[in-house]
Amino acid sequence: MLSKKHSTKKVIIKKASGETELFNVNKLINSLRRAGANDEIIKTVINDITEWIYSGVTTKMIYNRAFRNMRRLEAVSAARYKLKHAMFELGPTGYPFEQLMGMVFQGLGFSCEVGVIVEGCCLNHEMDVIATKQNEQHFCECKYSVDQGRKIGAQVSLYVKSRVEDIVNKRKSLRKYQNTIFKTWIITNTRFSEDSIEYAKCIGINLLSWDYPSGEGLKELIERQGLYPITVLDSLNKKEKGLLLSKEVVTCKQIIENPKILTEIDLAQSKINKTKKEINNLLRLKQGNK
Amino acid sequence: MLSKKHSTKKVIIKKASGETELFNVNKLINSLRRAGANDEIIKTVINDITEWIYSGVTTKMIYNRAFRNMRRLEAVSAARYKLKHAMFELGPTGYPFEQLMGMVFQGLGFSCEVGVIVEGCCLNHEMDVIATKQNEQHFCECKYSVDQGRKIGAQVSLYVKSRVEDIVNKRKSLRKYQNTIFKTWIITNTRFSEDSIEYAKCIGINLLSWDYPSGEGLKELIERQGLYPITVLDSLNKKEKGLLLSKEVVTCKQIIENPKILTEIDLAQSKINKTKKEINNLLRLKQGNK
Repeated sequence: MLSKKHSTKKVIIKKASGETELFNVNKLINSLRRAGANDEIIKTVINDITEWIYSGVTTKMIYNRAFRNMRRLEAVSAARYKLKHAMFELGPTGYPFEQLMGMVFQGLGFSCEVGVIVEGCCLNHEMDVIATKQNEQHFCECKYSVDQGRKIGAQVSLYVKSRVEDIVNKRKSLRKYQNTIFKTWIITNTRFSEDSIEYAKCIGINLLSWDYPSGEGLKELIERQGLYPITVLDSLNKKEKGLLLSKEVVTCKQIIENPKILTEIDLAQSKINKTKKEINNLLRLKQGNK
Repeated sequence: MLSKKHSTKKVIIKKASGETELFNVNKLINSLRRAGANDEIIKTVINDITEWIYSGVTTKMIYNRAFRNMRRLEAVSAARYKLKHAMFELGPTGYPFEQLMGMVFQGLGFSCEVGVIVEGCCLNHEMDVIATKQNEQHFCECKYSVDQGRKIGAQVSLYVKSRVEDIVNKRKSLRKYQNTIFKTWIITNTRFSEDSIEYAKCIGINLLSWDYPSGEGLKELIERQGLYPITVLDSLNKKEKGLLLSKEVVTCKQIIENPKILTEIDLAQSKINKTKKEINNLLRLKQGNK
């Protein structure tokens, strides 16, 4: 688990008694394990300590730093776990998810329309998100499901292809879009089937799901931009979250930017304070996780 | 309801008593109505009588002809009603419906493959029916539902468009299909939504449902070819029909062409005779209805 380099780095440290000794990484690993840390967290903590450690540092300072770091990583890991589940509480309709995706694109510098009817050559179509930046226009179909096991099949990629094609054919005939490059996305909070990925790659549709593409999935995009949905909060109950969602407040960021929304849903001052504190901790966590 | 011409045609007829009198069409109409015939059937019966009637014919001959005709028309109307419902008993899977559609195309002079996997440029796709005649190849997507209220929405037209396009793009690259004209069909036992019809018309997909296109719908195609599904039969129970369907016997015609299939599902001779008689009546009805 740990590289040889770390375990053999020789550093003289000071004990509480004032005596000195060689730093023994295995002692620290055992302490972290006894405290319940998993291998991944231990690895990250030990990497941090061995990069930082210097001769003359006290045992107390090492252990303080290691355990503080472990707790922070555990909180990040718990928040990520909560984030995944919070996505499933945005339902039952797909609209809050569409709004969240609009915000993700806004965070990437696009201007966005959510849930609009647009004209195609043959039909009018509803597009979940249309994201525009300079001469690029991205059409996004959002597939939201409260069923975690649901896979988005090839049929979705096939109909989205025809639908966007119908819209693009119309727009290409308009002067306004003469130099526009059009792109297609399918975004889901669940997963894609293998053949939907195969078809999308072949035909040039961008796919985005919780953990696809690897390292650039929804979880990373949401975490990087700190776009935590309000359903992640422990300080609000289901009814209060529902009220906020109905007022198109989908993310914690929106609450921080407009805190009086909490008064508007008749929240007691004590609860308002508790919610703000929870959000600030969450966003601080995100800062620390950068 | 009746044209002036019919009611004023003056014909001398003979009564049972030997006396003669002017034929009175209203008396016949009232008799038919009292016997429970509906307006449509009365109209057809009266049209037949007034075209056929001649001086010297007896009242008995007129009434015999009229009532025999009425019963036949009622039976045709009942058979058509039964046919529609028999379609919903082909389920729960869509496979018997696909086989039936294959037979409809065969009746139109095509050679057919049912439920085959074909290669596209991006993916392999399952096609429900591929019907080929000379340099024409028709790809048919069958949407079977046991829910009579189900409408096939635009999404189906959209994904079928991309799917057939993917297959056609592949085939066009092969020498074998160099001069082939490809067509796309969506066929359902229920109905199409307005926008699925609009899109299909715009993009050039052929649609076929129970009563679409008007006068050329499934009911007419099936009746004209006498392709009554076995589920229309009263002489077989659900289990026996299921056994036949599992042996890919979908139509009454198949039973007539290969009657020993009834022995193969262990039917008693009396039941076999009853079934054959019912089928012959049904097909005779079709002959009479031409």
